[in-house]
Amino acid sequence: MSRLLLVSNSTLHGSGYLDHCAAAIEQFLGRDVARVLFIPYALHDRDDYAAQARARLVALGYQVDSLHHAADPRAAVLAAEAVFTGGGNTFRLLNQLYANHVLEPLRERVLSGMPYIGSSAGSNIAGLTIGTTNDMPIVQPPSFRALALVPFNLNTHYLDPDPHSTHMGETREKRIEQFHEENPQVVVGLREGSLLLREGPRLSLLGVTGARIFRAGQEPEEVLPGADLSELLA
Amino acid sequence: MSRLLLVSNSTLHGSGYLDHCAAAIEQFLGRDVARVLFIPYALHDRDDYAAQARARLVALGYQVDSLHHAADPRAAVLAAEAVFTGGGNTFRLLNQLYANHVLEPLRERVLSGMPYIGSSAGSNIAGLTIGTTNDMPIVQPPSFRALALVPFNLNTHYLDPDPHSTHMGETREKRIEQFHEENPQVVVGLREGSLLLREGPRLSLLGVTGARIFRAGQEPEEVLPGADLSELLA
Repeated sequence: MSRLLLVSNSTLHGSGYLDHCAAAIEQFLGRDVARVLFIPYALHDRDDYAAQARARLVALGYQVDSLHHAADPRAAVLAAEAVFTGGGNTFRLLNQLYANHVLEPLRERVLSGMPYIGSSAGSNIAGLTIGTTNDMPIVQPPSFRALALVPFNLNTHYLDPDPHSTHMGETREKRIEQFHEENPQVVVGLREGSLLLREGPRLSLLGVTGARIFRAGQEPEEVLPGADLSELLA
Repeated sequence: MSRLLLVSNSTLHGSGYLDHCAAAIEQFLGRDVARVLFIPYALHDRDDYAAQARARLVALGYQVDSLHHAADPRAAVLAAEAVFTGGGNTFRLLNQLYANHVLEPLRERVLSGMPYIGSSAGSNIAGLTIGTTNDMPIVQPPSFRALALVPFNLNTHYLDPDPHSTHMGETREKRIEQFHEENPQVVVGLREGSLLLREGPRLSLLGVTGARIFRAGQEPEEVLPGADLSELLA
């Protein structure tokens, strides 16, 4: 009975850190969870990042421990009530999860029902691989395989093509098309302001901006806020 | 005596394939080169890509062989008069160079004086690593180490931050800053419309749009078209 809240972006333009998803986080964690384990690996300054996350989650009524303070990261994951993985660089995040031997324990805990929240890179790693990240490969993880908490890939901060652009770099849609030339799995393009909520066999799209579902060899499908996406878990 | 022509982008908005750098290619190859070996590995449809490159280079007076038609890719690289590597996905390109055992031979040939032209991903792989590519990691190469024909990294299609953007994904400058949290080497941000020309110990910036030089822990440096960048080879 996996429980996931996957946020496209931690900060929406014009509001503060986690403001746009604070209500969803409170509803998701409820009042049975007292402490949240924060994973700060995606950013360089972990102390600073943990302080930011702590301040925001304490305001919602949750205590916060940061994984980078744990003497035994694996044990910390095994003992956590809930986990929140922050955004930053996806390659650095995944590399550190491997280096600290917490990828498998984290996956097992979530599969056993521990609530998992991710934002941006923290959501990306919930997919099968990090093959649809937007980030630069600043470090090389031993594998691109990720937590596989859902049977598809995510592209967070999804951006629609800009018809007025004169830039000739590939659009996000073109990049995902190239991904599908090499990989079979569905890709969910999650726009800023959108969230995925998984409650066991049910997957729903929350937020206000919608999402775009990319399947190999097919036209992309636009899905609206509130959509039931449970079929993607099949 | 390495000779390199590294183009940020094959197609500039409003003009045709390689138009903006055709004169630079002719001047770089001169009339002693009769045949160019094209490397189409960055795109999925290699036949189509080779046909496009052939048509354009034939119009400039050069015959073209495509590496994907070579029975022995390594031998083809060792026998080439000049190489042109086209753009596409950098991970796929580098992965195929490793898989076909042509990375080292190609590097050795260029170090021995064979002219090398790259555009976009084909320029990116001339750097130390592909750690500053903009592409999605659609396949996993055995290493991010690239041709190392220059002692720095390149970011092609470099984009300045847009002060009016409401998108909260990292800017290109922020991504390069994250690269420097993990890696020491200089990064040359090459805007669309810019080219780097290396003639042995001399490195110059050609084109019309300038470039931005990023050094770890320092403010980025703006360099103008025509700039002598030979100090980056030291």
